[in-house]
Amino acid sequence: MAGVPIYRTPILADWIDYNGHLRDAYYGLILSYATDALLDRIGLEASYRERTGYSLYTVEMHIHYLHEVKKSDIAVVTVRIIAADHKRIHVAFDLLREGQPEAAATAEVMLLSVHQGPTVTTQPFAAEVRAAIDELQRASAAMPPSGPGSRRMELRGR
Amino acid sequence: MAGVPIYRTPILADWIDYNGHLRDAYYGLILSYATDALLDRIGLEASYRERTGYSLYTVEMHIHYLHEVKKSDIAVVTVRIIAADHKRIHVAFDLLREGQPEAAATAEVMLLSVHQGPTVTTQPFAAEVRAAIDELQRASAAMPPSGPGSRRMELRGR
Repeated sequence: MAGVPIYRTPILADWIDYNGHLRDAYYGLILSYATDALLDRIGLEASYRERTGYSLYTVEMHIHYLHEVKKSDIAVVTVRIIAADHKRIHVAFDLLREGQPEAAATAEVMLLSVHQGPTVTTQPFAAEVRAAIDELQRASAAMPPSGPGSRRMELRGR
Repeated sequence: MAGVPIYRTPILADWIDYNGHLRDAYYGLILSYATDALLDRIGLEASYRERTGYSLYTVEMHIHYLHEVKKSDIAVVTVRIIAADHKRIHVAFDLLREGQPEAAATAEVMLLSVHQGPTVTTQPFAAEVRAAIDELQRASAAMPPSGPGSRRMELRGR
């Protein structure tokens, strides 16, 4: 498994599109919930965010759709930390169908640390948050990418 | 306006996250509905899809989040066709807040023409669909990109 399991969910009926499979945007919603779980994991849980005004904003998300996901599937998301600095985390997610080895989607997400006051400003991570990010990065460092990374999108082989 | 207007929606209360703004994934849902509107525009509307088994699959989506979107905003999506071949369309969307000039998000999406039979196979566009794509591409050709394109995601300036 190319990452640390972080989130698991059944596929809701509302998420199925006219093709009979998970609508593209709901892969993104599952990844968004996985990002919430990642925040919990690194000490940026809801109560901390409310108390301190700190939060993370998603600034970029790049998803590769590799396989259909059916209503009967259970989605499992694994996470790797590709890179981090004092205010940003570059994350790779795999969206898997429980019991199947091939990822249904791979995604990269860039998260930015902010403080929400009268205005929103970028904000360095607190030391304990940075330590938790580093620990998760070490835990996932040996895990190889399982799909296409975030590259420039273009038509090839025309 | 950097594209042809294709979709417009109010922001639903369910789409607001703990930061009090449109959750990242729901930018993606609005873009997914805009993709449905694009299918209607090029002659791949629901009745055609059901009659013929032809459809489009999203194979890649890359979103740049530039501004928050509030509950009171109206989202307007504009579209440009960056490139197309016999079975693929490379699309650029801008997600705007009605009445504000700056895009709240820009996105690139790669769509693949498929036929849904017992198995799903890639499928060249019908001639009339290709003609409609080409016409939309011509209509949006002079419109410049309004935000960052789809490039490799990485931490810069560390």
